[in-house]
Amino acid sequence: MPPPHRFLEACARRPVDRLPVWMMRQAGRYQPSYRAVRQQVGFLELCRSPELIAQVTCAPIDEFGFDAAILFSDILVHLPAMGLDLTFEKGEKGKGDGGPKIANPVRTRADVDALKVPVPTRDLRYVLDGIRAINAGLNGRVPLIGFVGGPFTVASYVVEGGSQGFTRLKTMLYADKAAAHALFEKLTQAAIVQIEEQVAAGAHAAQVFESWLGELDREDLEEFAFPYLARIAAALKKTGVPSIFFGTGLSGHLERIATLGFDVISVDWRIPIDEARRRVPGLAVQGNLDSTVMLSSAEASVKKALGICKAAGPAPGYIFNLGHGIQVGTPPENVKAVVDAVHAFRW
Amino acid sequence: MPPPHRFLEACARRPVDRLPVWMMRQAGRYQPSYRAVRQQVGFLELCRSPELIAQVTCAPIDEFGFDAAILFSDILVHLPAMGLDLTFEKGEKGKGDGGPKIANPVRTRADVDALKVPVPTRDLRYVLDGIRAINAGLNGRVPLIGFVGGPFTVASYVVEGGSQGFTRLKTMLYADKAAAHALFEKLTQAAIVQIEEQVAAGAHAAQVFESWLGELDREDLEEFAFPYLARIAAALKKTGVPSIFFGTGLSGHLERIATLGFDVISVDWRIPIDEARRRVPGLAVQGNLDSTVMLSSAEASVKKALGICKAAGPAPGYIFNLGHGIQVGTPPENVKAVVDAVHAFRW
Repeated sequence: MPPPHRFLEACARRPVDRLPVWMMRQAGRYQPSYRAVRQQVGFLELCRSPELIAQVTCAPIDEFGFDAAILFSDILVHLPAMGLDLTFEKGEKGKGDGGPKIANPVRTRADVDALKVPVPTRDLRYVLDGIRAINAGLNGRVPLIGFVGGPFTVASYVVEGGSQGFTRLKTMLYADKAAAHALFEKLTQAAIVQIEEQVAAGAHAAQVFESWLGELDREDLEEFAFPYLARIAAALKKTGVPSIFFGTGLSGHLERIATLGFDVISVDWRIPIDEARRRVPGLAVQGNLDSTVMLSSAEASVKKALGICKAAGPAPGYIFNLGHGIQVGTPPENVKAVVDAVHAFRW
Repeated sequence: MPPPHRFLEACARRPVDRLPVWMMRQAGRYQPSYRAVRQQVGFLELCRSPELIAQVTCAPIDEFGFDAAILFSDILVHLPAMGLDLTFEKGEKGKGDGGPKIANPVRTRADVDALKVPVPTRDLRYVLDGIRAINAGLNGRVPLIGFVGGPFTVASYVVEGGSQGFTRLKTMLYADKAAAHALFEKLTQAAIVQIEEQVAAGAHAAQVFESWLGELDREDLEEFAFPYLARIAAALKKTGVPSIFFGTGLSGHLERIATLGFDVISVDWRIPIDEARRRVPGLAVQGNLDSTVMLSSAEASVKKALGICKAAGPAPGYIFNLGHGIQVGTPPENVKAVVDAVHAFRW
């Protein structure tokens, strides 16, 4: 890849020729090309095929001109290697790729102790081969973002057995603190080894998806989440690639999150982007279009996107993205219109 | 009621003898006494009986010693008078009282135009009679809080037809702005006439439940929510009773919400209470215990509650409450332990 690339430059808060843009879930069910692949294979089957990973990861770069590719995978893909029986049901509401189910969820200290930390070069070889295949396909056009799930978010699925809320996990925090810490420790180790190997295989940046962290109050964040996230950030720093923290519902905690050691904070749409940037002056900021607007018209989508570009301000270190993933049913032409409008935006 | 009462004093940011405490959904399925009533009658039947309203509203005052009663009713109770066919299903997840269903949801401008603004003295007489019966039962021991739903939150049920997310409503905002404004206008008028009549019937304070407002970004809040909420706050100011604004997921907007005209802001658990108080210095603040902790032990609940009391600081104008409602399955002894601990707390 010929440096400098505007996405990586923005991560480092260096000036760029135009605003970089990528979108969470940019490879997904809203694309006819993705749906065609999924008519042939199930979700986990897709995640386990390096060739198909490369195909669906590269497709949105060709189709929409995004400035970064993101590894097609799932934040739970390592759970079978940890000893958990993971499946994906078809077509669960909202997710589009079916909701995760874990037949043997973690409920006790003994369940936690039985979890194995995966060895990615052995257990997740298809991910690493996928990264190599993606980079071959991209041929240096855009950087590739690797990712892992944050310990709290992964734990919520592991303990609840699926997308069933947070009550069991939160109850564990209060009723068996030691078991909760042991679980977060294992999930942190699993996150670190995965992201290290993704970078070794060729990822140029890494995002930590701590999507549901906004469920915790500050006291619990300090005890059960921030120390683990700081370790993941430190491990990422050693790899030398830029690190992105993503969460939702965290507008009350931005200044503190800025101290964890990540290079970029990705914010949801629940805070104006200018206020977010003011509150984390030492970091790059990514976000924050409400993806729901793209379900309506290209005109409404572009209007809102340009408002965000303008509010983000001219200071280097802003990456256009959504506040959460692209929704199923989004017309691809609305996505294209937003990418083009962000690229055309000038100060 | 012999003034001054500590709940009303705290709303006015005057010094109190001890911290006032009440809890959202303090009358509900976690109580054996409430479950006994609900074995006899359905949810809407209960909401329509002044005698039963008074019974279930007063029960938690007797059982736990809360410093305020809150009218037992529902934010959707006026919808049949507006022309909507409202029912409650039994035992939907999380709600405990069953999820609302609207057989004829509002989807078009014509649907909006057909909505009638209710006349509370005619259509919601049972609520007003209920308020009089509650005050007779309370006999001045504690003040009574009336309430309405905020226009956006009520609209989400009205447009989606139940608790089914926000996609249809948000799509209406972008695709048919005029219809959305017409809907919010009708719901604002409905909120104002209800709350005025509740105060006339004897409510000593009023809370606006705008529970799902955190779904909107600032631009949409400014266009579709804040102007309507400011009108409701102004109407409440004229009645002379303290007004409380409640929402969740709004940590990114507190300073702006503080300008709407409410006397008290109720915050969820997604911001430390000391930071919330610092950010809205001119208002009283209510909150912000994560109700999930009360599903575990009295010890863990009290520890977290006392941490909040301490963080809230000694300045007048703090009311202890939850970040959202009491959850089904909460042991009543945990609720009692928290109330007692807050009352025993001293600076």
